[in-house]
Amino acid sequence: MKIIKGNIIFTPTYDKFEIIKDGYIILSNNKIVGVYNEIPKQYKNYELIDYKDKLIIPGMNDLHCHAPQFRNVGIAMDKELLPWLNDYTFPEESKYKDIDYGKKMYSKFVKEIYKNGTTRVAAFATIHKESTMKLMDILIDSGIGGCVGKVNMDRNSCDSLCEYTMTSINDTLDIIKRYLNKSELVKPIITPRFVPTCSEILLKNLGEIAIKYNLPVQSHLSENIGEINWVKELHPRSKFYGDVYDSYNLFGDTPTLMAHCVHLTDDEINLMKTKNVYAVHCPTSNANLGSGIMPIRKLLNNNVKIAFGSDVSGGHSFSIFKAIVYAIEFSKLIWAQNKEYDFLTLSEAFYIATKGGGSFFGNIGSFEKDYEFDALVIDDSDLNFDNYSLLERLEKFIYLGDDRHIYHRYVSGKLI
Amino acid sequence: MKIIKGNIIFTPTYDKFEIIKDGYIILSNNKIVGVYNEIPKQYKNYELIDYKDKLIIPGMNDLHCHAPQFRNVGIAMDKELLPWLNDYTFPEESKYKDIDYGKKMYSKFVKEIYKNGTTRVAAFATIHKESTMKLMDILIDSGIGGCVGKVNMDRNSCDSLCEYTMTSINDTLDIIKRYLNKSELVKPIITPRFVPTCSEILLKNLGEIAIKYNLPVQSHLSENIGEINWVKELHPRSKFYGDVYDSYNLFGDTPTLMAHCVHLTDDEINLMKTKNVYAVHCPTSNANLGSGIMPIRKLLNNNVKIAFGSDVSGGHSFSIFKAIVYAIEFSKLIWAQNKEYDFLTLSEAFYIATKGGGSFFGNIGSFEKDYEFDALVIDDSDLNFDNYSLLERLEKFIYLGDDRHIYHRYVSGKLI
Repeated sequence: MKIIKGNIIFTPTYDKFEIIKDGYIILSNNKIVGVYNEIPKQYKNYELIDYKDKLIIPGMNDLHCHAPQFRNVGIAMDKELLPWLNDYTFPEESKYKDIDYGKKMYSKFVKEIYKNGTTRVAAFATIHKESTMKLMDILIDSGIGGCVGKVNMDRNSCDSLCEYTMTSINDTLDIIKRYLNKSELVKPIITPRFVPTCSEILLKNLGEIAIKYNLPVQSHLSENIGEINWVKELHPRSKFYGDVYDSYNLFGDTPTLMAHCVHLTDDEINLMKTKNVYAVHCPTSNANLGSGIMPIRKLLNNNVKIAFGSDVSGGHSFSIFKAIVYAIEFSKLIWAQNKEYDFLTLSEAFYIATKGGGSFFGNIGSFEKDYEFDALVIDDSDLNFDNYSLLERLEKFIYLGDDRHIYHRYVSGKLI
Repeated sequence: MKIIKGNIIFTPTYDKFEIIKDGYIILSNNKIVGVYNEIPKQYKNYELIDYKDKLIIPGMNDLHCHAPQFRNVGIAMDKELLPWLNDYTFPEESKYKDIDYGKKMYSKFVKEIYKNGTTRVAAFATIHKESTMKLMDILIDSGIGGCVGKVNMDRNSCDSLCEYTMTSINDTLDIIKRYLNKSELVKPIITPRFVPTCSEILLKNLGEIAIKYNLPVQSHLSENIGEINWVKELHPRSKFYGDVYDSYNLFGDTPTLMAHCVHLTDDEINLMKTKNVYAVHCPTSNANLGSGIMPIRKLLNNNVKIAFGSDVSGGHSFSIFKAIVYAIEFSKLIWAQNKEYDFLTLSEAFYIATKGGGSFFGNIGSFEKDYEFDALVIDDSDLNFDNYSLLERLEKFIYLGDDRHIYHRYVSGKLI
């Protein structure tokens, strides 16, 4: 048992912050026993780590990113989705056939998400089995939790990234067998890149594998008008984009992440709600690629689960704190045009970044009883130069802070 | 004479970067003689400062910010313009009656813009004469160039910030007399806060002062629908918001900065073009306050001059590099809805941040002949881990970099 002391801030619900000044978090192994103003008598003698005036908040959950696009983060920002994929992204991902290149770049990637306070991540790798396993190993070594998907794509891609259908399936199965029980914190995830690059036979097999091994699924959904039209051409009988995934058991039959969701139909939103599919909001990516803004308030009103993703390298920032800021700002741009859709409050956006995204991995992202202790300790002393409230300090750190302010990182009770 | 060596990047025009690898900038005093691939024979013996593989780019120009809102940067982001002014901003600005408070906070403000690479600034102070002069002194000491305005407001404000009209005028004149020739780099600027807080007699006098002393003008324009309606109520005979300024010689009769320009009429745009009024784009502020997006492509198509502003604390970042990123992203959000308005390219946004904004102060913001040497030396070695082109290195620094990457700062030839 262990006791953590400091200024504790978290969001058990969307609508407000729970703030305990000079409070105590009691941990039993990796889990939270409770949060208290005073140490309850029975815990008085346990080890205490005193973070004094620092802020203690849940860790950030990045529910959509492309680890092999690390090299291209912050460059090539002048393209729309489909040309950007063909001209910049696919050539870079092709390099991960070389396991040494993969090892080098994935190490840098993991270092960068660590630096930025991500404690759980859902990452796309590439089609390459060896490099994908390397990414899983590096993630396991880092202490960061999450899931990693070998990407599946057997059509409509460049030659160097187009798999034989059976190779795609067998490599996926091989990774699952090796990694299903290798680590408590890092797991495989079924990852069809997106509908256009996956044949029906591949999608069918991936859905069956997901169900057989009870594995989660991640992919892309309704990011861009051109992409949506392409899906419609390829699957003329589908009711909407998400219906294609759904018809192959890849849309909520196991826990499912769908990135972007900028241009959803009402039926699509309804199906996402019914099947508990997460809409992963990647605001900087949606702007950088000219996709548009996800209608986040509409999705919240319809009880769709929401998480944030950095979506590097469509997105340019590794920081989920920046996703919070952008998501609020973009919701205000929608609100400026249509007052029916109220903008996101800070507590709502913070909830999405912590408990919202964390829920995909279990009891993660809050400091409630029985939650795993994923946390960041924030040293905001240089920002806190006047008489700010704890909530103002948090807001200031989120808007102005960076990796320099992240003093310690915990994942599932362990300092990493 | 002096020679600066490094990887030189600048934008003589909107449409493309000028890039000289391992190039030389020849300076004569504070001005640029030329940029060369090799040192011309006649300059061979002058002092050479070798920045090796670093990037050398023009300094950033921040053409709209509120220095006395420093304390509130990154907090209170849940309000629209008018309540935000009344609840957060005016109470904070009132504190600057206390010159010690002003000195303390303005020192922090100047340090922060220095850190972020701003080499010229147009800043609002408060109504308080003493504090305003303190800001000018601190700016002069820092070596950063620009102009500072004592704010004028004699109606529709909180009691503590509402001036007597004559005091407002006399204090303005007093500052002008003391500071008109005190510094080459820091000058006064006429600063009616915005139409609603200035009586007609005050506006009339400010226009006359601007013309008499040939002083520039800065204010706010068409930021928010509620504000525009209020102006219309107060000035029912005006053709549009900017027409009120224009009728008092505060709209381009001397060089004029108008911040925001989110909701302009076509006639307003036309008048701005005719009278060379700058539209100062403050993207993060416009999002944070739910104002909307400035139609930047429409203004560029209409040959309106454009600059960037941080607009702290409506904006949350002191960095004009972040204004570049946001301006591009917001232009892509407009483009996503209406393909008629092409998004900003990196060279266009970089031009606006450097030569565009710099032109307000003279030959500033480019490395062309006879330009004053305002520059930043960028050490991007940690970002440059692969075989990137110079342009990709610049792009990566703009999207991912921060103050840690700014190695040296020059204003008008002097290392600051």
